[in-house]
Amino acid sequence: MPVSAEVPGPVVCFGEALMRLDTPGFERFVQANSFQASFTGGEANVAVSAALWELSSRMVSKVPAHDLGDACINYYRQYGVDTRYMARGGDRLGIFFVENGKSQRGPRVIYDRVASSFRSLTADDFDWNQILEGASWFHFSGTAPAVGQAVQTQLLAALKTCRDRGVVVSFDVGYRSALWTVEEARRGYAPLMEYVDVLIGSEQDATTFFGITSTGEQNQRDFAREFGLQVVAYSDREVSQTGLHRYSAKVLIGEELVQTPVYEIDVVDRIGTGDAFTAGIIRGQLLKHSPQETTAFAMAAAVLKHSIPGDFALLSVAEIEHFAQGGSLAKVRR
Amino acid sequence: MPVSAEVPGPVVCFGEALMRLDTPGFERFVQANSFQASFTGGEANVAVSAALWELSSRMVSKVPAHDLGDACINYYRQYGVDTRYMARGGDRLGIFFVENGKSQRGPRVIYDRVASSFRSLTADDFDWNQILEGASWFHFSGTAPAVGQAVQTQLLAALKTCRDRGVVVSFDVGYRSALWTVEEARRGYAPLMEYVDVLIGSEQDATTFFGITSTGEQNQRDFAREFGLQVVAYSDREVSQTGLHRYSAKVLIGEELVQTPVYEIDVVDRIGTGDAFTAGIIRGQLLKHSPQETTAFAMAAAVLKHSIPGDFALLSVAEIEHFAQGGSLAKVRR
Amino acid sequence: MPVSAEVPGPVVCFGEALMRLDTPGFERFVQANSFQASFTGGEANVAVSAALWELSSRMVSKVPAHDLGDACINYYRQYGVDTRYMARGGDRLGIFFVENGKSQRGPRVIYDRVASSFRSLTADDFDWNQILEGASWFHFSGTAPAVGQAVQTQLLAALKTCRDRGVVVSFDVGYRSALWTVEEARRGYAPLMEYVDVLIGSEQDATTFFGITSTGEQNQRDFAREFGLQVVAYSDREVSQTGLHRYSAKVLIGEELVQTPVYEIDVVDRIGTGDAFTAGIIRGQLLKHSPQETTAFAMAAAVLKHSIPGDFALLSVAEIEHFAQGGSLAKVRR
Amino acid sequence: MPVSAEVPGPVVCFGEALMRLDTPGFERFVQANSFQASFTGGEANVAVSAALWELSSRMVSKVPAHDLGDACINYYRQYGVDTRYMARGGDRLGIFFVENGKSQRGPRVIYDRVASSFRSLTADDFDWNQILEGASWFHFSGTAPAVGQAVQTQLLAALKTCRDRGVVVSFDVGYRSALWTVEEARRGYAPLMEYVDVLIGSEQDATTFFGITSTGEQNQRDFAREFGLQVVAYSDREVSQTGLHRYSAKVLIGEELVQTPVYEIDVVDRIGTGDAFTAGIIRGQLLKHSPQETTAFAMAAAVLKHSIPGDFALLSVAEIEHFAQGGSLAKVRR
Amino acid sequence: MPVSAEVPGPVVCFGEALMRLDTPGFERFVQANSFQASFTGGEANVAVSAALWELSSRMVSKVPAHDLGDACINYYRQYGVDTRYMARGGDRLGIFFVENGKSQRGPRVIYDRVASSFRSLTADDFDWNQILEGASWFHFSGTAPAVGQAVQTQLLAALKTCRDRGVVVSFDVGYRSALWTVEEARRGYAPLMEYVDVLIGSEQDATTFFGITSTGEQNQRDFAREFGLQVVAYSDREVSQTGLHRYSAKVLIGEELVQTPVYEIDVVDRIGTGDAFTAGIIRGQLLKHSPQETTAFAMAAAVLKHSIPGDFALLSVAEIEHFAQGGSLAKVRR
Amino acid sequence: MPVSAEVPGPVVCFGEALMRLDTPGFERFVQANSFQASFTGGEANVAVSAALWELSSRMVSKVPAHDLGDACINYYRQYGVDTRYMARGGDRLGIFFVENGKSQRGPRVIYDRVASSFRSLTADDFDWNQILEGASWFHFSGTAPAVGQAVQTQLLAALKTCRDRGVVVSFDVGYRSALWTVEEARRGYAPLMEYVDVLIGSEQDATTFFGITSTGEQNQRDFAREFGLQVVAYSDREVSQTGLHRYSAKVLIGEELVQTPVYEIDVVDRIGTGDAFTAGIIRGQLLKHSPQETTAFAMAAAVLKHSIPGDFALLSVAEIEHFAQGGSLAKVRR
Repeated sequence: MPVSAEVPGPVVCFGEALMRLDTPGFERFVQANSFQASFTGGEANVAVSAALWELSSRMVSKVPAHDLGDACINYYRQYGVDTRYMARGGDRLGIFFVENGKSQRGPRVIYDRVASSFRSLTADDFDWNQILEGASWFHFSGTAPAVGQAVQTQLLAALKTCRDRGVVVSFDVGYRSALWTVEEARRGYAPLMEYVDVLIGSEQDATTFFGITSTGEQNQRDFAREFGLQVVAYSDREVSQTGLHRYSAKVLIGEELVQTPVYEIDVVDRIGTGDAFTAGIIRGQLLKHSPQETTAFAMAAAVLKHSIPGDFALLSVAEIEHFAQGGSLAKVRR
Repeated sequence: MPVSAEVPGPVVCFGEALMRLDTPGFERFVQANSFQASFTGGEANVAVSAALWELSSRMVSKVPAHDLGDACINYYRQYGVDTRYMARGGDRLGIFFVENGKSQRGPRVIYDRVASSFRSLTADDFDWNQILEGASWFHFSGTAPAVGQAVQTQLLAALKTCRDRGVVVSFDVGYRSALWTVEEARRGYAPLMEYVDVLIGSEQDATTFFGITSTGEQNQRDFAREFGLQVVAYSDREVSQTGLHRYSAKVLIGEELVQTPVYEIDVVDRIGTGDAFTAGIIRGQLLKHSPQETTAFAMAAAVLKHSIPGDFALLSVAEIEHFAQGGSLAKVRR
Repeated sequence: MPVSAEVPGPVVCFGEALMRLDTPGFERFVQANSFQASFTGGEANVAVSAALWELSSRMVSKVPAHDLGDACINYYRQYGVDTRYMARGGDRLGIFFVENGKSQRGPRVIYDRVASSFRSLTADDFDWNQILEGASWFHFSGTAPAVGQAVQTQLLAALKTCRDRGVVVSFDVGYRSALWTVEEARRGYAPLMEYVDVLIGSEQDATTFFGITSTGEQNQRDFAREFGLQVVAYSDREVSQTGLHRYSAKVLIGEELVQTPVYEIDVVDRIGTGDAFTAGIIRGQLLKHSPQETTAFAMAAAVLKHSIPGDFALLSVAEIEHFAQGGSLAKVRR
Repeated sequence: MPVSAEVPGPVVCFGEALMRLDTPGFERFVQANSFQASFTGGEANVAVSAALWELSSRMVSKVPAHDLGDACINYYRQYGVDTRYMARGGDRLGIFFVENGKSQRGPRVIYDRVASSFRSLTADDFDWNQILEGASWFHFSGTAPAVGQAVQTQLLAALKTCRDRGVVVSFDVGYRSALWTVEEARRGYAPLMEYVDVLIGSEQDATTFFGITSTGEQNQRDFAREFGLQVVAYSDREVSQTGLHRYSAKVLIGEELVQTPVYEIDVVDRIGTGDAFTAGIIRGQLLKHSPQETTAFAMAAAVLKHSIPGDFALLSVAEIEHFAQGGSLAKVRR
Repeated sequence: MPVSAEVPGPVVCFGEALMRLDTPGFERFVQANSFQASFTGGEANVAVSAALWELSSRMVSKVPAHDLGDACINYYRQYGVDTRYMARGGDRLGIFFVENGKSQRGPRVIYDRVASSFRSLTADDFDWNQILEGASWFHFSGTAPAVGQAVQTQLLAALKTCRDRGVVVSFDVGYRSALWTVEEARRGYAPLMEYVDVLIGSEQDATTFFGITSTGEQNQRDFAREFGLQVVAYSDREVSQTGLHRYSAKVLIGEELVQTPVYEIDVVDRIGTGDAFTAGIIRGQLLKHSPQETTAFAMAAAVLKHSIPGDFALLSVAEIEHFAQGGSLAKVRR
Repeated sequence: MPVSAEVPGPVVCFGEALMRLDTPGFERFVQANSFQASFTGGEANVAVSAALWELSSRMVSKVPAHDLGDACINYYRQYGVDTRYMARGGDRLGIFFVENGKSQRGPRVIYDRVASSFRSLTADDFDWNQILEGASWFHFSGTAPAVGQAVQTQLLAALKTCRDRGVVVSFDVGYRSALWTVEEARRGYAPLMEYVDVLIGSEQDATTFFGITSTGEQNQRDFAREFGLQVVAYSDREVSQTGLHRYSAKVLIGEELVQTPVYEIDVVDRIGTGDAFTAGIIRGQLLKHSPQETTAFAMAAAVLKHSIPGDFALLSVAEIEHFAQGGSLAKVRR
């Protein structure tokens, strides 16, 4: 297909590639005799959404040069992600083990990410000018700088190339206490902010890591002004006693702040829902949709993702738009 | 067992036999590496219910003369349906692929029914006088005439034989837009109505296809009068945002109109619930139960069916009656 | 590890060992082509909880001298239960078949326990002085005397040894109408009561089997006084139409009566939840926790157990205490 | 279908109905977390073969009046066996647990058959005149008399009715040391032999139980003469070190003794292969095939059965005849 | 990666895309309650091998514009096949059902390919100049022309474009009697031969369809001369009674005829082994390997494929070369 | 049970605990959507055999203080291994991924063992005097010193304690090239040999690592003399083209050298077979069996282990002895 002048270039996603191993059904870790296997990662989730939702995307990471590395690449590639820039080498693929929760018992995650190939990045692994050739967007999350100096160095190289090339940059704060302390995270995030255009996080993130102490709507506006952000997107989740989630978002795009309704959700798998939301924001911005449309699409994608096992938001644009416009997907479609 | 004079003759069901292939758990089509297999069809569902609920039944359809055709027949036969009148031949068994939904995402169905053996019916496939020998009831649904002329011809032959033999006829409108247009359906249904005694549908069906424009209770009464129907049974379903279904029915039997309570249901599998309802109506009429009893039984069967995977209402009369009479099935029975 | 003077001795549990065979997902018995297998029994459930929750425990029962008997012992032993006192011999392992319910349809159990090894106990099977050596607690339930004279005889021998040795005795009434009549149960329970210190049951049990006719709080107090009980613990369950359970307890410990909140639960598997509650009471008493703490822990364990497939309350003390203290487990923990 | 005068009447099979529970793959009993479930029994296996191979058959047994009894009946019925004469009642369905072997390790079976419904037969359970109405053949095996007096009584009643009605009787010796001693079996078989026309067994059976001490071909001829048998069919199996089976048969029909080649077989499931052989003999006799044809068909059925999981010889007449006539089934058929 | 001048251009494969549904383990069709799902097709198999073995490839076919069509494309794409030229539309995806064989019972296939999207090709579906842009090779098999005129027309258009562009053409005869008669095939193959450079088939194919009546080595040489073929590759398979396969090949490349050893194989899945062989021949020719090397690689790939479930030869070049050079893969590699 | 003076004390096994993740059936790594999970390790395999074969055993290792560490301990404990000396802590459990082979394609293993808890042993983790209290035997393999200095230090501490306490020491050379070079291994093994009494390896090991250059029988005798070994046990495996293994052993015990027959084996899972052999040697020595008996038992255990999925030799003494004495296990046992 010839690429039209108006079609945005690829969304480049940089972050750790992970194998995800789930216990079956509602079994706890000590009960599991088998694990469902998939390959994920917050940034890979965004890359898959972009590819599914009629954009294009490249995933940039590093996986071992053995068959499980191949399997990871294949897994991303099946959904149309461009995987030519996946570096190979290092000792191991990071793993995260998941046990699903229900009712009063939530899901549990055991990270097994030490000594991963991604942590052993070197300058030889990536040629950022080549990787960002023609790209319209660059996305990363807070777990990337969290895993160490080697990744931070590469990330900074990528961000500088983005600035040189005019590539929009989005950053999903996603603080993980298992990976570093609040203080470490604050120091890790600081040098990145000058390159960031679009921020996904929460009011608590703004206060904790970025010194934005105002509250409510003002918090988002202050955050945007302080760091020159074009988008500040917050999502919010409460979990009821019986396991239903109440999920909503407020998104500041330019001067306009959009508040979504609260959706009550009977969750199949919440992992990756934030990434679906992020991908929806990116898509709306790339396609120059209105703040209202962008937010509604991002929210619809995130809400529907809760019903899908695995990290990926395996939904079509038509399905998401139908729901975003108030249509029910809950009937049999035949 | 000797057949007593008061035991009703078999319920003869005519319609397409289908293989149903389900993705596992809540997986979407693009995730599935395997499919659960079963053999279904709206009319087969009614035949199975009749056999399970202490009536007898015959399934009349056509399946290929290979092992999957055998498997289909075996599948019906295990529950006691008389399958001697299943014709064999033609190219293929129709398939419908199902992905289960949850919360805001509903189930999806992909029909793969073109060129099926059922669509290639010929006059040689069935001897209606033999098939209806001793029968008390004949049931078909709107998907039968929808699949083409060959089926319509056979259906009409069956209906005429029913009239000659005094066999009661039920018709479940079940319009499927994937199979034909509203206009085609209107023309397809018209010649059948003179043979129909019991109609299962909705107020919308009455208006759209049969020109009954009154509303509320009057709609059912007008429908019955216009077409000389002894029963007009409507069920109604609303789906809440979190995937709970609100299900109820209103049934006109003779002059009496029974309105059920609204049941709120956490659905396992909604496919086949309408057929369970239909089978309950047929059973009540055949056993000369009161309109109230008939409706309560049909509703109980349909409500409980929602908890059972697959199309069939695998429930005993005792279970259904216990629930119909207000008993809770939700405790452990041990 | 050297055993400190303050660590309680083992909880000795006596009852039938059973194989549990579950249909997959929500399949009914007539649909099942396979069964999930585990090894359970109300008293074994208590023994496993005790071992998991930082006490120690011994399971005392009898299983056949073949591989399925081995498998049963292995299954208990994996969680740290001391299985050295499992007698071997007899004809068969009792089985209970389970089909899971959903929404308006509850779970169903088929007992297949006749002629089991447990029913063929002889005086040679157990040396109670050896078994109770160093023990702090003895637990049994009402299903033990229900299965016949041989078990009653052994149980009485055990109870007498407990009295001689000062071992605390708990009794979970757990009447099963499939095993004996109310009148038989009344006669079976009577001779045991003089040995019982801690009773788990319901107001209805108190009235039906033990002649305690007062109601409300007074019922528990009268029960305790009449039989010299240090604890009378009642739990209560209501099942809503859509399958949510409302679960609560009131526990009399000494003079203090603690009433828990009502928890609304979206159930994965309710079997074994009462045993989790019982184990929580035992643990609190053994560790000399306050009535309030004991009850909160027992309730938290029981509530969380509802989310775990199988009979066992596979939860850590930390998880239970976190929930008991009002913490939410429903978020992702990573 | 109208029954032509030349079509043989049903084959009536009498014996214990069993649930079979298999560990997955090559797992040992102590490894199994699930079991594959099916419903079998040596005589049921013959009934299913008869129904599949264009004869008709009735299975006569007794199963509990609960859902697992229903499931058993459904399981037989799916393949076209007439199950109207399955009595209902008693305590439990007998079970046999199977672990599959490989190479030097053979399959293991644990019988769990005590106290089964079949062992509790009463005169009220069967009306043999009704059951044998129109029947051409009656089949039983040595495990039926082995399980006790109640069954022996019913068996004798059936055999007498067969003699009165001229129904041919086949008996598969199938001695099981787990069920009774050699001496008990000898006494149990003796009174039955006057009714038997067709015997399936081995030279060792002839010597051990029936006092036929000659060897080789003479053994079969002496056996036939002594007991007035029209067929004496022996099959033989040797197991090589690597798990390949060498399987052959010699069959005396009238005066003609047919010796098959030895087939070397890489076994999937050997249970039920002897029953497939028996059903082949019955079929040949009923259809008046030559001794050569009969034996070749029986042998082909038995050989091919080894490749099919479960007890049933799920093969078509066309497949068996193709192989019996020397055709290879080992190519892809498409 | 920049494409070096010496790297061959893509292998373009044209043929029907199929869903493959396998019964589990060794179950027969009538036993299956589920099917393993994959997406295959002889030409797709070649495309996957090319992509895996360090060439590049394009798959050209047509699949429906629904989720199963997406799933098919994803399935090919995961292994690196370029799927941009997969046309979308038509009614259905062809299916082939497979039951695995063992020992004396071979695999069975049921084709369910009528009315497939591939059969409804139109001139609008493909722009052959674009598709073949930069391509080095074009591959098709005899099942493509077998499914009808629409495909034949497109195939001829492709072949003409190949001649214009100098793209090498390979043709795997693969006659399927289920799709057309010998006479139809003969007429169907004839007009294609002038475009073919590399033929994969058998001596029987040469005689039956192409009038080459010589035998042995001469047959291949005559075939090559008659049709101007650069390669004539025959493989041969015999199946022993116990299910072991004896597999070998003789390949004429230019003037050199290479005969492989006979490999005795304990088969897991033989479907797709011929395609692995074909892909090996294509690879050798594209990389200008010697006839000896080419044949050894193709044979090694085909032999090893027999051990892999599914159609695809999921093997690395290193694994195949190691085996081709006489190394054993049968030890644990760790 | 009181421990009699003649019952040997526990076999203490020291080595890495590993999670084993297997692809299903014969799937390759790139095909796997799930993994079977178990917990293994060469020394754990020996510990489990000892516990199963009527000895007692302790497993000494280190696993993380999270649920997967619990699951590992539970897994060992279920078979009766004493797990009280499993240290807790460190970052992760080592994993090894397995894909099963067939015919010409062998199994593949991917080690994922870097940064494991076992590699981070400290002096605080073990009190060897306590651990070896009452022990009769200590076993380790060459993979223990291979994983680094921390383990070597602990191993040496254990070996010294063994010498002080008179505990017999066995060493299974088990060189793994993935973990260290030949030269590193040579240096790693050297300081351990003075403590070793029983060596399991091969002639090649003797030559490569220990400078024993003689061949045949003399090699074992020289090896024993050089290092003062009471047992030198070699096993040998050849893999045929079709995947059958030819397995045999020669064992020098004292002055007597026993050569076993060669067993031809159709392998289900070869991992752990060497450990079964080792455990058999240990058992024979501990129970003071003759060299002939000891070797026959060890060989029988190893041969039969090939038929069992997973690492553990889940066999009873009776089964092994029956086979060791020439009995066939390949018949159905019922």
